[in-house]
Amino acid sequence: MYRTHNCGQLRMEHIGQEITLSGWVQTNRDLGQMSFVDLRDRYGITQLAFNVDSDADLHEASTKLRREYVIKITGTVRERSSKNSKIPTGNIEIDVTSLEVLNEAKTPPFTIENETDGGEELRMKYRYLDLRRKPIQENIIFRSSVAIETRKYLAEQDFIEVETPVLIKSTPEGARDFVVPSRMNKGQFYALPQSPQTFKQLLMVSGFDKYFQIVKCFRDEDLRADRQPEFTQIDCEMSFVTQEQILQTFEGLTKHLFKVCMDVELGDFPRMTYDEALQKYGSDKPDTRFGMEFVELNEVAKGHDFPVFDNAELVVGICAKGQADSYSNKDIKKLTEWVQRPQVGAKGLVYIKYNADGSFKSSAGKFYNDEQLAAFATAFGAEKGDLMLILCGETDKVRSQLSDLRLEMGDRMGLRIQGEFNPLWVVDFPLLEWDEDADRFHAMHHPFTSPKKEDIERMLTGDHETMKALRADAYDLVMNGWEIGGGSIRIYDRALQEKNFKLLGFTDEEAEEQFGFLMGAFEYGAPPHGGIAFGFDRLVSIMKGAASIRDFMAFPKNNQGRDIMIDAPANIDQTQLEELTLKILPLEK
Amino acid sequence: MYRTHNCGQLRMEHIGQEITLSGWVQTNRDLGQMSFVDLRDRYGITQLAFNVDSDADLHEASTKLRREYVIKITGTVRERSSKNSKIPTGNIEIDVTSLEVLNEAKTPPFTIENETDGGEELRMKYRYLDLRRKPIQENIIFRSSVAIETRKYLAEQDFIEVETPVLIKSTPEGARDFVVPSRMNKGQFYALPQSPQTFKQLLMVSGFDKYFQIVKCFRDEDLRADRQPEFTQIDCEMSFVTQEQILQTFEGLTKHLFKVCMDVELGDFPRMTYDEALQKYGSDKPDTRFGMEFVELNEVAKGHDFPVFDNAELVVGICAKGQADSYSNKDIKKLTEWVQRPQVGAKGLVYIKYNADGSFKSSAGKFYNDEQLAAFATAFGAEKGDLMLILCGETDKVRSQLSDLRLEMGDRMGLRIQGEFNPLWVVDFPLLEWDEDADRFHAMHHPFTSPKKEDIERMLTGDHETMKALRADAYDLVMNGWEIGGGSIRIYDRALQEKNFKLLGFTDEEAEEQFGFLMGAFEYGAPPHGGIAFGFDRLVSIMKGAASIRDFMAFPKNNQGRDIMIDAPANIDQTQLEELTLKILPLEK
Repeated sequence: MYRTHNCGQLRMEHIGQEITLSGWVQTNRDLGQMSFVDLRDRYGITQLAFNVDSDADLHEASTKLRREYVIKITGTVRERSSKNSKIPTGNIEIDVTSLEVLNEAKTPPFTIENETDGGEELRMKYRYLDLRRKPIQENIIFRSSVAIETRKYLAEQDFIEVETPVLIKSTPEGARDFVVPSRMNKGQFYALPQSPQTFKQLLMVSGFDKYFQIVKCFRDEDLRADRQPEFTQIDCEMSFVTQEQILQTFEGLTKHLFKVCMDVELGDFPRMTYDEALQKYGSDKPDTRFGMEFVELNEVAKGHDFPVFDNAELVVGICAKGQADSYSNKDIKKLTEWVQRPQVGAKGLVYIKYNADGSFKSSAGKFYNDEQLAAFATAFGAEKGDLMLILCGETDKVRSQLSDLRLEMGDRMGLRIQGEFNPLWVVDFPLLEWDEDADRFHAMHHPFTSPKKEDIERMLTGDHETMKALRADAYDLVMNGWEIGGGSIRIYDRALQEKNFKLLGFTDEEAEEQFGFLMGAFEYGAPPHGGIAFGFDRLVSIMKGAASIRDFMAFPKNNQGRDIMIDAPANIDQTQLEELTLKILPLEK
Repeated sequence: MYRTHNCGQLRMEHIGQEITLSGWVQTNRDLGQMSFVDLRDRYGITQLAFNVDSDADLHEASTKLRREYVIKITGTVRERSSKNSKIPTGNIEIDVTSLEVLNEAKTPPFTIENETDGGEELRMKYRYLDLRRKPIQENIIFRSSVAIETRKYLAEQDFIEVETPVLIKSTPEGARDFVVPSRMNKGQFYALPQSPQTFKQLLMVSGFDKYFQIVKCFRDEDLRADRQPEFTQIDCEMSFVTQEQILQTFEGLTKHLFKVCMDVELGDFPRMTYDEALQKYGSDKPDTRFGMEFVELNEVAKGHDFPVFDNAELVVGICAKGQADSYSNKDIKKLTEWVQRPQVGAKGLVYIKYNADGSFKSSAGKFYNDEQLAAFATAFGAEKGDLMLILCGETDKVRSQLSDLRLEMGDRMGLRIQGEFNPLWVVDFPLLEWDEDADRFHAMHHPFTSPKKEDIERMLTGDHETMKALRADAYDLVMNGWEIGGGSIRIYDRALQEKNFKLLGFTDEEAEEQFGFLMGAFEYGAPPHGGIAFGFDRLVSIMKGAASIRDFMAFPKNNQGRDIMIDAPANIDQTQLEELTLKILPLEK
């Protein structure tokens, strides 16, 4: 028996009891006559006391305990003379009568405290030690609780969790598929799923009605800041539903998770069309914790011989409330450089200050008189003390640039408040996205997304320009500037699916080879259906207000897709390669 | 809105209500003046009635509905004139007022009924149709309920579900690893986990204390009868526990699952040592639904000039109660041929019939007189009418052969009763298994299993013969002749782990390269820990008394590891291969 209680359990009511605890040595203070050891496990910390007068050998042994030693002690619970109100066990301590060292520990390469001195690479190499730190351990435990609550909620709503296969088939759009050579089918490969999309649709064809799965997905892509080659989705699909019912169901799930796991009440989620989101925020995933909405200025800006504005497709700006005084010429210059960085890509920045004394100051002052600048202020709804920031250019690009600037100003002005959660449904996405460079359409959501009912006829018969205007029953759940979920009503008709593949540049043969099983299934009684997938790693990281999903994965990979703790990926044996009939080609110089 | 209710929901209390249902046409009976359609969804079947007199066009339309059409109807609930007590909705029917065909259906390639006429390959190709059949759909739903109950139970016991990585590293013992070439780390490979073993141990080193995960595992091996390349485990690990506490915890889980999901009360699980299981049943996973225990017969059998017995290491038999009369000479001959099949491999079979009149008849009758045959009967505890079946040979082999015969006799005698569940803990497994052919040890459980405490010293210092006798804190949970779970107390000391790797034939360098991270972790304060893993697919199939785990997987693969519905594995593009710097070698002739 290693313990009768855990290290977070003992209270005043246990005083006088003989107990056994096991755990890790957190700290060890030797005060000469007495030594005190803080014993730690997942559940808490309990103070152990060793007294020279009671047992000199035991006291001596206790002074040799070093940080992270694993020990087992037996002793009696007693009231502390100096209580610690910061921890639940702070009223008691253990008068230790026996001590056993279960395992020693070398000095950890970084301190195992809430704040650590370890760099990221070092902490990833010793991930099992980093996971001992309370903030990280709490993240992983929190993730576990969100998962179980998700399952309970969906199970209560008659959803069935079905495991779909991990070893599937590579798709032609699957340049980012991980592939898996088969030993039994030499020269052939499985692929790891980027999502269980086609399988969940088949489950609807099978009549499962309501499916979900918390499931690992895989993408072999260059890892930008916060992507991982393997990630987890809450994947869901429903039959005989409208978009409205899907939104209601998963708004319900999201509210439930925030309530149960965070004690946060989310009100009803606002909705916004894709077009409106782009017009107001320049983004299909706006952070709506703050306003600072875009103001389109073509009317007031153009026709005043300012060629930069006159030649632009769109002049658009934001109004930073009360910031006129805070930005010196030098600050404005820095901000201009900030928007000109390649990551943002604006050509320049025009500002108008509405000074406290009612005067205006602007970098475009020589093209506009005070009355004309006042017209800008009116358009912005600006008041004295406000700073107007204006960009111009091609509509899509300038909106994206101004979105970056808006978020930056939101950060600087402290408007993106930690612990505040602003969910938003973005709806009515375009079905297709025209790729000018590749001279082809991409699916905005994915190739299985249905156009809106009223657009189906136009899709089957319309011309190229018509296709650009098609709207889909597709929706994203956005929170605080992040997409946390996205889904759509699906196509369930073979002819429409064939048409969509054709629009996306598939030949009939390619469509049949890759998705023949799905189109076949549509011929045997496929019900109307739709679904959604949540990025589970992202969801939990946003709930906790954390920047990185890595902090919520037990064993994440680094930016090169490497697990540096186990050192994977790695070379494999030549015999293994031969069994797979594979040869590694030399790298080109 | 596709429906106000589902097809299993409506009762007498709904009579008079206007409702909308959607679902699949199960059957369609046209009686001239009336037609009746059974409408099906996951929840049940509701009868729809169409009357020529009410609406001739609608009736006409209804007669054109074919099986598996997807339709939506609106109508009024009314009492049936002829009720069907077999289904919960059997008291009512729908007087249909409007009908919409949502999707047509071709004639399915096999009938979608509880009993189908489809062959296995056909049903796998159209798995989405097979999944519409009630028995299969119920299996998948049952699996889902067992999973959620497992999670609820373990979460209530403070277990944390932690997702471990799927992209890990290939191990030297990993000839059966699936590998995954990395595009970002060219020439290197990830491997898919055969189990999350090392990660769950690291989580114990991290202090997670109680871990579980329902997790996909992978093995690229020749697929025997009922194996799948991807399968699911309930994977668990605990810190600061004894073997006893692990057995108690997971006996509790198993009882809970049977109670909640099956309404079956399992009593306390008996325990048996590995040695006893082999001696009594010739197997470490005995079916204990019936007795027919082995009786060792060297004492009565030897020394009577019957060279077959005299030269055998072990003479051992079973007593088939009341079977003397049932086995003619011809039957005995057939049974002898059965044990001589290569799958069993016995050289021959000796029988002794204890006839109803008290006489004996035996194929070894010329070596034993009646008194000597009576001594066999005494050893067996045989009564008049019993049939004694005796094999002999090398101990290990003859036990395995007799185990096969015992199970066969159990089947023939109807002793392996469906719906009866006999759990058994098999404990005290050997640590190592000597492989005569390869001249090396294998780990009986896996290389991380701890020897029993009392055997540690012998393991660190003993000679070769000592190693063969080492016992491990390893245990299997067996039910009805299947292993449904297995686990062990783990090594948590670097020196002991190094010794174990050495015994298993690893060089120091190999051990370090493959498992250096784990042995390193043992140096930073590793707690005593142990765990277990349940074969989840097997567990649910046994609970339902089914023969094959495939019936409990939504999308299983066939014996060649192929998903014949999506046609995977498949060839991949040359460009994909080039990105991975791989070349496929021509197959050897």
